[in-house]
Amino acid sequence: MAADDTSNVFEAHPMEGGDGPNSYAKNSIVQRGVVDAAKELVKRAIVETLNIDILSSSNSFKIADLGCSVGPNTFYAVENMIEAVEFKYQSQGQNSQIPEFQVLFNDHASNDFNMLFISFPENKRYYAAGVPGSFYSRVFPNASIHLVHSSYAIHWLSRVPKEVLDKHSPAWNKGKIHYLNARDEVVRAYEAQYVEDMECFLHARAQEIVYGGLMVLIFPGRPNGSASSQAWANMSFQVLGSCLMDLVRKGVVSEEKVDSFNIPVYSMSPKELAAAVERNGCFSIEMVADLLVPPVDDTSSMPQLIASHIRAGMEGILKQQFGEELIDKLFDLYREKCEEHISTTDTGKPVNFLVVLRRKED
Amino acid sequence: MAADDTSNVFEAHPMEGGDGPNSYAKNSIVQRGVVDAAKELVKRAIVETLNIDILSSSNSFKIADLGCSVGPNTFYAVENMIEAVEFKYQSQGQNSQIPEFQVLFNDHASNDFNMLFISFPENKRYYAAGVPGSFYSRVFPNASIHLVHSSYAIHWLSRVPKEVLDKHSPAWNKGKIHYLNARDEVVRAYEAQYVEDMECFLHARAQEIVYGGLMVLIFPGRPNGSASSQAWANMSFQVLGSCLMDLVRKGVVSEEKVDSFNIPVYSMSPKELAAAVERNGCFSIEMVADLLVPPVDDTSSMPQLIASHIRAGMEGILKQQFGEELIDKLFDLYREKCEEHISTTDTGKPVNFLVVLRRKED
Repeated sequence: MAADDTSNVFEAHPMEGGDGPNSYAKNSIVQRGVVDAAKELVKRAIVETLNIDILSSSNSFKIADLGCSVGPNTFYAVENMIEAVEFKYQSQGQNSQIPEFQVLFNDHASNDFNMLFISFPENKRYYAAGVPGSFYSRVFPNASIHLVHSSYAIHWLSRVPKEVLDKHSPAWNKGKIHYLNARDEVVRAYEAQYVEDMECFLHARAQEIVYGGLMVLIFPGRPNGSASSQAWANMSFQVLGSCLMDLVRKGVVSEEKVDSFNIPVYSMSPKELAAAVERNGCFSIEMVADLLVPPVDDTSSMPQLIASHIRAGMEGILKQQFGEELIDKLFDLYREKCEEHISTTDTGKPVNFLVVLRRKED
Repeated sequence: MAADDTSNVFEAHPMEGGDGPNSYAKNSIVQRGVVDAAKELVKRAIVETLNIDILSSSNSFKIADLGCSVGPNTFYAVENMIEAVEFKYQSQGQNSQIPEFQVLFNDHASNDFNMLFISFPENKRYYAAGVPGSFYSRVFPNASIHLVHSSYAIHWLSRVPKEVLDKHSPAWNKGKIHYLNARDEVVRAYEAQYVEDMECFLHARAQEIVYGGLMVLIFPGRPNGSASSQAWANMSFQVLGSCLMDLVRKGVVSEEKVDSFNIPVYSMSPKELAAAVERNGCFSIEMVADLLVPPVDDTSSMPQLIASHIRAGMEGILKQQFGEELIDKLFDLYREKCEEHISTTDTGKPVNFLVVLRRKED
């Protein structure tokens, strides 16, 4: 057994911790929008597909949130799932059988678990545990989880594909920080990393989830059949990359720093995920849905919102590479560029998916 | 169900986090001595008393360490227990049945879990989780733990007995910070708090531990029948209190600050614990042992050692009350006073106990 979840095989991409003005806790508004949009769908999926017989008597119902970050989104999502499970028991006349819940909050060891632990909602109805480690490896014992949830996390690859940072590789991604509008070799390197990672992800979960257990995955991606360039996240990264290159031209950032940096995010389509599920063979697909994030009323605030959103998610990884002092400058520029983009194109809207898988019996 | 483990009902007494020169991680030498002294005894206790049939097949073996702090002592203790459980399987010819292990590291939500999570030993053989919350309340689901361990933690009361800080109570402990050499009323208030806390502790554990599961408790205390003044910890606190009063006389600390401060530590005797176990009714006592901590070779370093030890354990609570700037001054004085004491008395030796309980069937 190799339960070494602090292994360096996987890179950590910590969200900005604490609760300062640029923290993930205060700026994960788009993610919160996704949580809200997902709320009823997740509830319906659980009520319709969960088989409560998977829980042996006197056992507790175990929910894992993968890539939980520091809250509060993870708390809303967890509360919603518990309500759904309880409703399922009630709807089957098994009120008295409602189990205790244990929630396992998972993220990289570098996540701010201290912040997470001191911000638990009062009177929460579950036992909580923090589980550090990459979800691309095993993090829980065999057959120990009944319901896995992951929101806005599995689009992070386990690492930047090595070739795209290698000067001597045809996949070297010079002057760019992502695969959008990059050479075919770069796109293929990202795709290959995604395939490998998703294989690890499903393999680990297949061991951890009990037969009949569910996995609810929410992720930003691109519609089936669309080009990578249509993915909202990819768009955002293209703009971010051009900001960095502007700063290179101004002499604020060295070109080498940009060349040795790529964002390990992949925008999958539901079809790509389905192919990975089929290859793995341990799960059935119970639901695939588009998540329509409610539009922001005031579009003039959209650039600010996008900048805050991307900053909340990317600040950790950008700080690591470029240093803390660059961040404000970079995101001021980013907001300006977003303003240009939003006015001319409609592809700036996030596209998010919800997929529900069930662990089949072997 | 009230699984609210961030409740303010219980006070947190965090050990000094991080890995700086005065951190718990670097100064828990006496505690480490206790871990070493306990090692063989704990192993023997597990091998002799654990019934491996308590684990249903395909389940993982769950170990909880209560009051784990930030390591590395908790890692040594856990590794030792896993070896013992594995040995038990091997000695019964059930090598192939050795289960996966999950270790639940528990401490107050204010514990430095970030530090704990990034310092896990490489190639650890268990799945790890951090569980925030006071062990005087429920922290785990019903019947979910096979082996509980707690070292140098249960001598901390859940709170300072209210009366001893109350000017209008006959139990007001003016000019003192602990119950040693204090009025009878003070001693009784501490005793009552201990009785209440131990009742909560055993009640919570009785629900969490599976039938047949074990609980290994290691704590500094006083021998059966001895006076409170003979407890080493109590001695130490008396010296610490007199240092604080010296600083009051010098005008460095206000008298009110000292009067509104007491250390919530109780030195129980094995007999007192046995009485609590009997009142609870859910556990049998499998072993009670003195832990002989190996003597320090060079007694001239003993005062420094004691000062470091007490500082490692008490710095958090002292900082909260008196501010960070006082700490160096206080412990310089403390070391000097320890030098006087060590030369004239032999009661400066820590007395530690190991008690093993088994969860009986109801």
